[in-house]
Amino acid sequence: MDSIRVFAPATVANVTCGFDILGFAVENPGDEIVVKTCTKPGVIIKEIKGDAGRLSHAVHENTATISILNYLDHVGSDAGLEIYLYKKMPFGSGLGSSAASSVAGVFAVNELMGQKLRTEELLKFALEGERVASGSAHADNVAPSLLGGFVLIRSYDPLDIIKIKTPEKLHAVIIHPEIEINTKDARNILKKNVPIKSAIRQWGNVGGLIAGLTMNDFGLISRSMEDVIIEPVRSMLIPGFDQVKSSALEAGALGCGISGSGPSMFALSTAVDLATEIGHAMQDQFAQIGIKSEIFISEINQQGPIILD
Amino acid sequence: MDSIRVFAPATVANVTCGFDILGFAVENPGDEIVVKTCTKPGVIIKEIKGDAGRLSHAVHENTATISILNYLDHVGSDAGLEIYLYKKMPFGSGLGSSAASSVAGVFAVNELMGQKLRTEELLKFALEGERVASGSAHADNVAPSLLGGFVLIRSYDPLDIIKIKTPEKLHAVIIHPEIEINTKDARNILKKNVPIKSAIRQWGNVGGLIAGLTMNDFGLISRSMEDVIIEPVRSMLIPGFDQVKSSALEAGALGCGISGSGPSMFALSTAVDLATEIGHAMQDQFAQIGIKSEIFISEINQQGPIILD
Repeated sequence: MDSIRVFAPATVANVTCGFDILGFAVENPGDEIVVKTCTKPGVIIKEIKGDAGRLSHAVHENTATISILNYLDHVGSDAGLEIYLYKKMPFGSGLGSSAASSVAGVFAVNELMGQKLRTEELLKFALEGERVASGSAHADNVAPSLLGGFVLIRSYDPLDIIKIKTPEKLHAVIIHPEIEINTKDARNILKKNVPIKSAIRQWGNVGGLIAGLTMNDFGLISRSMEDVIIEPVRSMLIPGFDQVKSSALEAGALGCGISGSGPSMFALSTAVDLATEIGHAMQDQFAQIGIKSEIFISEINQQGPIILD
Repeated sequence: MDSIRVFAPATVANVTCGFDILGFAVENPGDEIVVKTCTKPGVIIKEIKGDAGRLSHAVHENTATISILNYLDHVGSDAGLEIYLYKKMPFGSGLGSSAASSVAGVFAVNELMGQKLRTEELLKFALEGERVASGSAHADNVAPSLLGGFVLIRSYDPLDIIKIKTPEKLHAVIIHPEIEINTKDARNILKKNVPIKSAIRQWGNVGGLIAGLTMNDFGLISRSMEDVIIEPVRSMLIPGFDQVKSSALEAGALGCGISGSGPSMFALSTAVDLATEIGHAMQDQFAQIGIKSEIFISEINQQGPIILD
């Protein structure tokens, strides 16, 4: 094999109450990467599309190639690789764009090299790409993008990632309004301390959400999708947040919240038709305050990155 | 029926990371209550044993009769009832002694009255007893004592109680050292605010513990039994805590922590023989610093209160 094309999924991190510890992957959108072997050693970025010229072509600054370089270093390879990166999701959107590129890159190269490592072992390399993009190695986008499904990051030190069973009917709605939030800014507005009462309510909801997912209890999932700590702060950065969230719930969403650090929002639903209705209701609300938006509807992606063609 | 004898189980609240939101019931110890109907309207406490004379015989001050009075008021009954309360577990021990009496009382009277209410509907009356005992209506002892099993209190307002599936092999070790801690004091030493980083670690562990229980993953249960917020503070009130906990883990416990607000400690194990070994290892550690202790080994109680002959 001297060329490979890989898709890696976008992801919704936090999932309301699960700040920094929960994330899930979706079938759509996602990023694509093409990696070609060449005779001259070293990694070069030949092409990036879909980023409106904003991503660096320097291999030590691009998340996809950072993860690849870390991987090559680990396996002791001086392979020559040409990278073609196709950003197929909105940039800076809170959908784990950098994580998807990072995952796509290292997954593609591991396939090209005959699967020297197991998929789970690629996590640490993909995390290095994320560290550059967001200032710290948060795993709540990278882990679900790599492993697929709904993922719990129980602990960062040591890293402890658990794939959570989810009901088959579960569908995600993602809406990306045409506004931008910097991930670092979105972290900086958070408080360093929280009232113990709020923390208790939050971990009750985390317990409820995990129980609801593993026990197929949609009512419990719905009641648990409440964030009393992060959302009240971050939602201020998203114009119309309250109205958009209300419209999703009124349209029948199990729950609704900010995707990652925003500005994208997500909702969960029990059926694809209902998810589409929810998406349109949310889009209408953004439109009422003059904000254009794009919606994506899909099941929970269960497989992570895949080889295309 | 003009007389009934009921057993209600002791409970372990908090369960390491789940402060105020998790609890489970055990087969042993527990409290017993006998309720007899009599012709003269009104509730009177005829006898209390096992409390070393410390519990009030005034019906508005005793948790068992407070829950009964609230129940009678709700169903509009002026029944005449004689109460005999047999405390069969250490007092002020962190094993939900007041909750067990409260549950036993209201459950017994509901049975005597031909089950006017469903078991779950008794919760609010049992909580009233708990409010008097601990200063607030915490449900993390009352709910598992009433419903049996491993219980998540997702929310207090509105009250949302979820019974969590647990692996059949799960066994609990409880050790009660002969020292006393007042529940109100144990609450007062807690901080009002917590670092967001600690809160994130805690809710990661809550998610892990619930996932481990529902997915039968003992390794995950074990890794998740970590409390970075409450235990570091409350364990200072228990002499030898660190050594006793270490001895439990070295003996093969999945995890170990404070039961409720202490001073009792608990450990979880995958088998009854192992649980017994763990109990003895913990007892030896307390003995080394001159503290006598009592151990209780049992499965997770799945049924809550039961009628005894």
